[in-house]
Parts: sequence; C-alpha cells; structure tokens
Amino acid sequence: MGAMTTPASAAPEPFDAVDVIVTKRNKGDLSDGQIDWVIDAYTRGVVADEQMSSLAMAILLNGMTRREIARWTGAMIASGERMDFSSLSRPTADKHSTGGVGDMITLPLAPLVAACGVAVPQLSGRGLGHTGGTLDKLESIPGWRASVSNEQMLRQLEEVGAVICAAGAGLAPADKKLYALRDVTGTVEAIPLIASSIMSKKIAEGTGALVLDVKVGSGAFMKDVAQAQELARTMVALGTDAGVKTVAMLTNMQTPLGLTAGNALEVRQSVEVLAGGGPPDVVDLTLTLAREMLAAAGREEIDPADALADGRAMDVWHRMIQAQGGDSHALLPWARETHEVRAPGTGVLTQLDALKVGVAAWRLGAGRARKEDPVQAGAGVVMHAKPGAYVRAGDPLLTLHTDTPERFERALEALEGAWFIAPEGSRPDLLPLVIDRIS
Amino acid sequence: MGAMTTPASAAPEPFDAVDVIVTKRNKGDLSDGQIDWVIDAYTRGVVADEQMSSLAMAILLNGMTRREIARWTGAMIASGERMDFSSLSRPTADKHSTGGVGDMITLPLAPLVAACGVAVPQLSGRGLGHTGGTLDKLESIPGWRASVSNEQMLRQLEEVGAVICAAGAGLAPADKKLYALRDVTGTVEAIPLIASSIMSKKIAEGTGALVLDVKVGSGAFMKDVAQAQELARTMVALGTDAGVKTVAMLTNMQTPLGLTAGNALEVRQSVEVLAGGGPPDVVDLTLTLAREMLAAAGREEIDPADALADGRAMDVWHRMIQAQGGDSHALLPWARETHEVRAPGTGVLTQLDALKVGVAAWRLGAGRARKEDPVQAGAGVVMHAKPGAYVRAGDPLLTLHTDTPERFERALEALEGAWFIAPEGSRPDLLPLVIDRIS
Repeated sequence: MGAMTTPASAAPEPFDAVDVIVTKRNKGDLSDGQIDWVIDAYTRGVVADEQMSSLAMAILLNGMTRREIARWTGAMIASGERMDFSSLSRPTADKHSTGGVGDMITLPLAPLVAACGVAVPQLSGRGLGHTGGTLDKLESIPGWRASVSNEQMLRQLEEVGAVICAAGAGLAPADKKLYALRDVTGTVEAIPLIASSIMSKKIAEGTGALVLDVKVGSGAFMKDVAQAQELARTMVALGTDAGVKTVAMLTNMQTPLGLTAGNALEVRQSVEVLAGGGPPDVVDLTLTLAREMLAAAGREEIDPADALADGRAMDVWHRMIQAQGGDSHALLPWARETHEVRAPGTGVLTQLDALKVGVAAWRLGAGRARKEDPVQAGAGVVMHAKPGAYVRAGDPLLTLHTDTPERFERALEALEGAWFIAPEGSRPDLLPLVIDRIS
Repeated sequence: MGAMTTPASAAPEPFDAVDVIVTKRNKGDLSDGQIDWVIDAYTRGVVADEQMSSLAMAILLNGMTRREIARWTGAMIASGERMDFSSLSRPTADKHSTGGVGDMITLPLAPLVAACGVAVPQLSGRGLGHTGGTLDKLESIPGWRASVSNEQMLRQLEEVGAVICAAGAGLAPADKKLYALRDVTGTVEAIPLIASSIMSKKIAEGTGALVLDVKVGSGAFMKDVAQAQELARTMVALGTDAGVKTVAMLTNMQTPLGLTAGNALEVRQSVEVLAGGGPPDVVDLTLTLAREMLAAAGREEIDPADALADGRAMDVWHRMIQAQGGDSHALLPWARETHEVRAPGTGVLTQLDALKVGVAAWRLGAGRARKEDPVQAGAGVVMHAKPGAYVRAGDPLLTLHTDTPERFERALEALEGAWFIAPEGSRPDLLPLVIDRIS
C-alpha cells in the first residue's frame, strides 16, 4: 500500500520525511541529522505542512529526549539570523511569559529593569485566543509602532535601555511557520515544541540572561503544576546549555492578574504601577521578576523598588514609548459601551476564573480568533473584586467594555460559573502568586 | 498561544477541526457527529490536509473503538455513490488482498469463481511501493483497459461473470483523498484506517459476499500474526454489520507467493494456473479462496477444482480480458535484459525473504515510487527455487529482468541477505500457507 523503503528514483535529499515521521511514531529517537534536515526542509517547503503536522502529533504523543529537544531548538535557530548585543555598554536580560489573562507585566517591567542599568530587548507577540498580546496592548497608545529595525533596536537599547517590539521575520523563521501550523492542527500543547519555540527565539535574540514566567492554572496553557515544572525545567536546560543564564518562576494563573483584561485597560494599569500605585499582585510580580532579571544579569545588589518609587522607571517608560513613535501622554481609548455585572449575593469572593474572564474579554473584542482579525483597543473586562474580597449583593463585580454591544451576550455566556461567593468567614483556596522557582 | 475555545466569529460549521483532533489526541472517543463532519468537511476541503494528517497520527497512536471505526467507514461510504448489483441473475462475491509480493491470485481467481456461477466485481488498484498492483499487471496485456463505466461493469458481470477494473472516482472519494495523504504522512499503518479504507470501498461497491486475504510476514503490511488477526477481526465486523457476508483468511507472506514478482511475469504465471499448471502454492491459495467465495455466496456445493481442470475458468479469462479490449492471445512483453543470481553454496534453501524480493522487483522497474511514475511491463524477479528446495552451488536461484540494466546494482543491494542456504537435511521454519480463518 505505501512506499515503505527508499525508491530507486529518490530525490537527492539526504533523508525522507516519511522515515523521520515513522521513527518518532514508533517511539524512536530522531538522529541529529534527521532533526537538522526536517527543520531545514520544512523551512524550504520540501517537507509539506501535512507531513510536519503528523510529525508534531507524534512528538506530542511520544515525547522527545533532552538531546532531541536541544537539537530541534538549535535547528530552528539555524533557520534564521542571530542577533548580537555584545557591543552594548550594559548587560542584557529578557523575560518571557507563557501567557495569561491580565498579564501586562512586560509593560512596567522592561522600563523598570532598564532604569536599574540592565538593557531589556523584549521581542513580543500578538494575542491569539483568550490570552492577550503585548504588542496589541501597546498599539492602543496613539502612534506607537511595533516594528523596529535591528539597528534601531541596538540604538534604543543603548540610549533608552528598553525596547518592546515585534520579532523580525529573520529570527527563527522555522519557528514562525511551525507555530502557525501547530495552532490549527491540535499540536500546540507539546512540551518539547513549546519549549523549543520559546527558547529558539530567545537564544537567537542574543540576550545574556532570561527569566521565564511559566503560568499555571485555568487561564494558562499549563493547567497543573507538574506539567509547568516539566516545561520550566526543559526551558531552563535549553537556555543554560546555550550559555544564557536562565531562571524560571512558576506563577499563579487560576485567577486573572491585576484588575483588568484588555488592551488599553491593561496599559492604563501599567502606568499606575509605574506611578507607584496599581494592584498589589501586579506590583509584587513586577518586582519579583525585576529582581530575578537583575540577579541573572549580575546586578543583584540593586533594589528595583527604589526605581519604581522615585519615578526613574516612569521616565524610561515615556522615553521607550516615544522612541517608537508613541504619544505616552495621550489619552488612551475607552470602549463605547459598558455593561455592569453585579454580585448576586453577599459573602467572600472565593473564586474568579482566569480562563472565563479571558474568554469574555476576547469575545468583547480584546482578542482575535484569526491572525488577520483586528482587535478593539478599548474592549475588555474590569474587575472590581479579586478572590478574598468581601462583596455585598448588588455591588459591581465586573464591568464589561466593548465598541460592539451585540457582543455582551456571548461574553456573559463565557462568564457563567466564573465566580463563587461563599459565606462570610470563608477563605479562597488559591495557590500563592509565586508557586516555584527553577534555576 | 493557541485558540482553545470557539471564537465569537466562528464559521457556520457545526464542529471545529482542532476540537476533533484534540478529542482524539487526548484519548477521547469521537462522537458520531464529529466523525460525519470531519470526513465530509475534509472531502469539501474545509478540513485541511495538515489537520487530517495530525488526526490520522492521533488515531494511529490512540486507536478507535469499534463504534468509531464503523461510523468512520459509513461516513466514507456516504462521501460518494453506492453501486447496486441486485439486478444481476447470480450472486456476487469479491476478494480483497492486503497486498504481498507475487500476489497475482485475483487474476486466475476471478474467472474461476465466475466459471462456477458467482459474479465477481473486482475493483482493483495500482501498485505503490514494493507490492504490485493488479491493474499494473493486467495492463501488460496489449489493449487491455482498466477503466470501465458502471453500466459496462453490470453488463460484463451479467454476460461474462467477472470484471477486474479501476474503481470509479465516485466511489468513496473521501477514502481516495485520505489514502493519498496517509501515504506521505507516515500514517498508513493504523488498523482503524486500513480497515475502514478497504471496507468502505467494498461495501460501497455493493458485493454480497467478501473474502479478505490478510497477508502476514515481511512482505506484507502486517508483520505479525496478532496484528493481522486484529485487522481481520475489525474488517469482518465492519462487513458483517453492513450486511456483507465476510470471511478473512490470514495467509503467509514471509516468502513470495509463486515463482514470479513483476507485471507480465505474474500474468504469464496466472495463465499457467488457468491452464491447469502453475506453482503449487498459487494453485492451493487460488482454490482455497475460490471455495470461501463460493461458500460465502451460498454455493458451497461447487468444487472449483473442476472448473480449473476442464478449461471453463480459462474460457472466462479470455472473455473477461477481451471484454475490456485486451488481446488475451497476444505474446506478453519480456524485459530487454536479464541477470542471473546463482546459489553461493549447496544445501537447503530455508529462507527467501518476501520484502527483499519485492523491493528488488520494484527497483528493477516493476513498481513505482510515486503515483505518476510509469511501470515496466517486463521487469521483475523470477525465482528458480522456493524455501524447502535443495540447491547446488552455482545453480540459478533468481533471474532479474529489466529494460534498464543500470537498475541491476540497486536491485542486487536490496537482495542482500534475502536467502539462507542451510546444510542438507535442514527444514525451513515457515508458517503454513493459510495461518488462520476469521469469520
């Protein structure tokens, strides 16, 4: 029935896609040569999408050894250019979050760390699904541009200390192609593929130190701690092997971070943090990650809380936004319509589910279903209480924001069962904000 | 990272391809609705090749229940037309072989069973890889055409009693598309997909009875007996549930069937069998399968050996070939060049590996590596001894035939280790020709 052996008229490729797929399907280890070839041939279009997707499913179900993951990551880096920040006068540190609801930490974090003397080259993405994208958030600032040339990036890192921008097309093109494929073929949730996707970009980017924020809980990709620990350990090993000082923090994504989910809503909250205010969990996580980045870059003696308190971080924020054409003093857009959700009873809010809030924000217009969809700058959810808070029947619990009020109905559907109000004296059963640290 | 929940702007399809893939990936059972939709949407091009291949890999690795396989088969049948032979004046029986080396049994079997009063509507395929295709073999007869309209097929079944032809494009188009995809994505060897592919065509074809020849051994898809039994049981259940009287025979494919592998070479051997001669294993299997087909069609009282002995089967052969434009008396083509392989020692031939002989015949030009490649009518391998035979050093063991002598080298490479000559008095350790019967 099928062609099981190399035919007499084989093309002059050194490997055969079906052989590579069958090796992994039969629980074998891929050789270095097979891995280098399959990534390169996929980038060239010689290995077809339908072959790479069946290989991705076999990897998801049968796993990969540490050697295979490292080689796969290396092959993805080799598919494109590598950046080099060694000419900078200061050390570099980057942060990556696996994505969560209300996770706008990059926005205050990058200028804060830069204000402490460590350069932050932050290549970010757009949102897909219920988790927001850093670039979508910043694009709610009038004039701000995500696209920056490599030369501009270096100059901005030297002069301002921080840049948040879109990754250029030259960085790990194999990863870009594979990521888009995994998204439509049910193969996103493979730890070897998640780890190599993240780390290939971060290693190719050329940062000296890297802090990984691995989210755990309903609103994150990793639903349980054991899975998240496996992903974190895999990524830390990949970074360390590549000479990047890498630390991973496992943090709580059972409930949204902060009090907002949405683009302009989260930028506003970031500015509050830079002004010395903001929700305690956001401030706490921003400072925790800043300390890790500074330590990884060899500046453990510096306390980032000072730079937040004395306005230096805010100064860098304004310069960073302005360097990319943004008007950092402009008013941010608000959605045209709002809808109040009120507490149905009195008691302690013990649960506010991150996934349900994230899907509601997405459906209100904050996120996109397809890469080419636009997002609404003002859409999203504002939370008036977080787990542990005492609420009274009729108090506002959430405010939904959208430009298109016909979206309220489906957002409210997504919120069904999102919260639980327990009798007075109850306590929420939540994991701590920082669950584990892996280095 | 990925879109995990139905987006607000979902297309008006009742299911989502990623949800279906993720269900099977997570070891869940697909619902009837999911199966009907995914097959239909794949046929319409709404489910993309890269989605179907990752689903096929998940099915291969995680399996399917009997209900899922039956529904999947039904959905593939529903993707196209169904044929109906109820207007014929005699019962119908068909045979399907899972494919082996030298397996030309269909050629003498169809006219033999027709000569016994049971009509044989044999839809056949072309070869891909090391196993030959019935249509390729018959096309070595000058003038013979594989393509027959449904009307012609009915008329030929009524007037001649047997037709061997290509399946029309209208029969199970989902299977055609999926089969071509599996061939390039390492997903051929999934028992649920093999069983549903074979049975969807046979049920849609409308035969009243079906005998399955499930090959076991190096030259077959099923390398071990337990796997072959599972495939056979799955197919018998599918046929029985669909009202087709179905029996499966497990037969030996450790060593090639008969003494030839190649297109015209096998046709010549078929004619020898119809003339009352031919290799004993081929005669034995032809009669065994003929008895099963007659019994399944309610004609167990008829002994097909008589129709072979008295020339009635040969008469039907000539009429069957001529009805499709073939000159059944013409000389068959021979290859332009031959190369003799001689026994390196004296003793008992205890092993002659089916896969290696099949790959050699393929490389000589008898088979194709890609669907669009041509085949050589005369190319192949003639065997001068089979396991159990006594051979003397220097005796001819095999003769290789090809039009393109530069192919000898790679064919000889394929034959390395193909045979074993043991000291006099040794016996080959072979399975019997018929290993098991499942009904």
